[in-house]
Amino acid sequence: MIYVDLKGRLSGLTMTSSSFEAQVADFRQYVKRISDYKSAINLLGWDARTKLPKKGVDARSQVIGTLSTEHFKMRTSDDMQRHLDRLSAHVDQLTPVVLRTYEECQKDFDKSKKIKADRFEAFTVLTNTAQSVWQTAREHNDFASFAPYLSQIVEFQQEFIDCWGYEGHPYNTLLDAFEPGMTVQVLDPLFSTLRAQTVALLQKVMQAKPIDDSFLFRHFDAEKQRAFCTRLVQQIGYDFDAGRLDESAHPFATGIARGDVRITTRFLTNFLSTSLFGCIHESGHAMYEQALSKDLIDTPLHEGASMGIHESQSRFFENIVGRSYAFWDHFYGDLKTVFKDELADISLDQFYRAINVAKPSLVRTEADELTYNLHIMIRYEIEKGLIDGSLQVKDLPEIWREKMMEYLGIAPDNDADGVLQDIHWSSGDFGYFPSYSLGNIYAAQFANALEKDIPTFSALIANGDFAPIRKWLHHNIHQHGKLLMPGEILLKATGEPSNAQFLVTYLTKKYASLYEF
Amino acid sequence: MIYVDLKGRLSGLTMTSSSFEAQVADFRQYVKRISDYKSAINLLGWDARTKLPKKGVDARSQVIGTLSTEHFKMRTSDDMQRHLDRLSAHVDQLTPVVLRTYEECQKDFDKSKKIKADRFEAFTVLTNTAQSVWQTAREHNDFASFAPYLSQIVEFQQEFIDCWGYEGHPYNTLLDAFEPGMTVQVLDPLFSTLRAQTVALLQKVMQAKPIDDSFLFRHFDAEKQRAFCTRLVQQIGYDFDAGRLDESAHPFATGIARGDVRITTRFLTNFLSTSLFGCIHESGHAMYEQALSKDLIDTPLHEGASMGIHESQSRFFENIVGRSYAFWDHFYGDLKTVFKDELADISLDQFYRAINVAKPSLVRTEADELTYNLHIMIRYEIEKGLIDGSLQVKDLPEIWREKMMEYLGIAPDNDADGVLQDIHWSSGDFGYFPSYSLGNIYAAQFANALEKDIPTFSALIANGDFAPIRKWLHHNIHQHGKLLMPGEILLKATGEPSNAQFLVTYLTKKYASLYEF
Repeated sequence: MIYVDLKGRLSGLTMTSSSFEAQVADFRQYVKRISDYKSAINLLGWDARTKLPKKGVDARSQVIGTLSTEHFKMRTSDDMQRHLDRLSAHVDQLTPVVLRTYEECQKDFDKSKKIKADRFEAFTVLTNTAQSVWQTAREHNDFASFAPYLSQIVEFQQEFIDCWGYEGHPYNTLLDAFEPGMTVQVLDPLFSTLRAQTVALLQKVMQAKPIDDSFLFRHFDAEKQRAFCTRLVQQIGYDFDAGRLDESAHPFATGIARGDVRITTRFLTNFLSTSLFGCIHESGHAMYEQALSKDLIDTPLHEGASMGIHESQSRFFENIVGRSYAFWDHFYGDLKTVFKDELADISLDQFYRAINVAKPSLVRTEADELTYNLHIMIRYEIEKGLIDGSLQVKDLPEIWREKMMEYLGIAPDNDADGVLQDIHWSSGDFGYFPSYSLGNIYAAQFANALEKDIPTFSALIANGDFAPIRKWLHHNIHQHGKLLMPGEILLKATGEPSNAQFLVTYLTKKYASLYEF
Repeated sequence: MIYVDLKGRLSGLTMTSSSFEAQVADFRQYVKRISDYKSAINLLGWDARTKLPKKGVDARSQVIGTLSTEHFKMRTSDDMQRHLDRLSAHVDQLTPVVLRTYEECQKDFDKSKKIKADRFEAFTVLTNTAQSVWQTAREHNDFASFAPYLSQIVEFQQEFIDCWGYEGHPYNTLLDAFEPGMTVQVLDPLFSTLRAQTVALLQKVMQAKPIDDSFLFRHFDAEKQRAFCTRLVQQIGYDFDAGRLDESAHPFATGIARGDVRITTRFLTNFLSTSLFGCIHESGHAMYEQALSKDLIDTPLHEGASMGIHESQSRFFENIVGRSYAFWDHFYGDLKTVFKDELADISLDQFYRAINVAKPSLVRTEADELTYNLHIMIRYEIEKGLIDGSLQVKDLPEIWREKMMEYLGIAPDNDADGVLQDIHWSSGDFGYFPSYSLGNIYAAQFANALEKDIPTFSALIANGDFAPIRKWLHHNIHQHGKLLMPGEILLKATGEPSNAQFLVTYLTKKYASLYEF
């Protein structure tokens, strides 16, 4: 205790240094402190979702609030402004890491400063309330009670976009927060290609003979699932010396600090896929962060390039690798040993087909690899329309049903399973949804490039030899963190900008073979 | 993510309020922020000892260092000084909670300010090095290599005591940091009584027929231990809705925040007592913090009154309750059901006697209830002598062996099991050791008062009815936190100041019966 107190006395940042080197060192020190706060906040969040006793919830919110306040203050302080001003005179002398760090901090600083404190406050109060209103509205299947809050949230988004400014479509500013550089102009044709082809594919799937996946819903012991999943993610390359696997209601991966990237899952005893593909998905996220370049430590670049690139890594492992025949060619023997009674009558071929069943469903989070993107597009089109004023909140339930019918051929008979199903809008997270589909698009594009460089891709998977695959990802994607923009990573790794055709080709080939059309 | 950023914008402390009420509110707000930092630091520490993957250790030290620095700065800032100065003019108007909070903050502030930054820095560097030197010295049984570091640490302690000032004996200042108000003048006669009587008791025990405890070292399945310990601590009153039980190399209890007080243990498959009495001990600490008054939340008073009072609660449950015949009269049936093969041939009487075996041993942390205090007294006498200059570091190995022979009748043939066994001195923690024995002394004194108020004490334990006991502890001790001084708590609860005779009487009665003398 004393030890810590004494140490506390020592640091104390000064702004007196005058040489350029000292200015850069001061800046890096300041940014390091900010990243330490983020690490603490991430741990507090991880613990809240996995370990926190229920009577500790209120105090935890308070502590996270206090540290988040401090974190925000540091990013927008006069000290930060001085650091940025001093560096701005020497940008040509900065190393790439310091330059990108400077740019990230400047962008964050400018964006935060453009919104007046009282408007932020009003928005925070609104979304706090809106989240509980949404929860009750969903429980009671009552969109009308949530609608006025959603309208206000949309108005705030529009107001903030006006403050921040935008080029092209106003929604671009929201997209940029999650996928730097992404625009409606790029996204529209990407999604348009993907939607048309997916809808066509889905129609063929629906006309084909259904695949039996009922055995995935047998009883599977949770402890056995845990042991198998642990072995599995370790074999594909998740490093347990730099992470851990815990349980939580909603699975997630979180980078707490260098050498500490944790994943969670759920073990459902009546459905095997949840833990299997959840673990592979989250370890895809986590292996990304475990492989970030050491040069980026203690900077805001020590994280994924964007939400879309991050999601591409989880989807690559979950779907392209983890739902491939080669993958289960390698792992199914072990799985069958673990569940020898439960899977006694199930062949590898039956298992492979069952984990790839595609069919229209109402809820996004339960959708399969083929239909998932259609759920995203509905949300994207609605968000875009709300922001540019071409859609009205009151019309959403009807619009939702129309689009569901058009894309998926089914529609919910209540709003709880329709427009009210996601938390995102009530908490003001507009612009996030497209990341999920961008992840799928990028994943297929990366896989295509990877297979050109490593033609033995499938054979490696079938042999359980994931090291060359991880090496390719590390070299082309993982190491860069936020040092490169998403578009740069894509271009360098695949030789072209985002292109939905790779995903379309992959899905077409896969489902034509699975459903024999 | 956005949500947190927006919230961050809101707070921002101001010092502009002028009314007295507003000044108090500002102060409380400031102190609340400090306690939020402490909560975050406590969680980071808990996680480091229970969950942290090994590659995350370096980053974690850095994050804890950053938050501790900030925590220290807030406690010693100009803002804190202004808060204290403003309140100092109105102390007579402050509520008891605010007054004691003010006093605690002022004391902490003054103490920190009296040491120059460069001396703190030098001391921190020294103890950092000394801890690794000590570790190597203990491994190689080489006191000479550690001696010069210990000498310097002692000199620093003397220098700090000069800065802080002292009344009576210079060691009093060190004692006060762990046990406010405690002095050598009080401690010497307490320990002198206890030592003489314990040595006499131990001699009788050694002449009596030994008790067989060999069955405690049979093989006990760890998962079965966990299930039993969980049930046990829940029954005595540890609230799992406000805590959790995990594993760690060195068991501990930690209060992370209101509603979140966690305990850890070790499950040794070849020794049953470690987890059983470890869990009872730590839950004794934890039940104290779970029962602190809500009025103390978000103040520095929301913790134990002192290390000694804290230890009295763990020792009360571990020894006076947990090693009593009545306790196992209640729990042994369950334990025997869990370990029906392992304990098939062991009667309740045999079990009770085995868990209370006393015999001289070399290592403090493995000592039994009777001999433990003798280990503490050796350390106390050495610390006091080093601080007042009557003992020299170079003579410690010899002094250690002499005192061990005198008090326990055995002596180590190497310094690793002697003077080098504890980490405390290498990290500069002088004045801490006496708390352990004060805990034992207080525990017996509390138990005596409790039994006067609740004569059915033993019968309640035998019935597994711990609520009336916890209620007494809550009323007399737990609720007060740091609002009362240790001496005040003792006086109010027992009607007199600290008195070792209660512990002596308890031990004499217990061991005379156990060893039949």
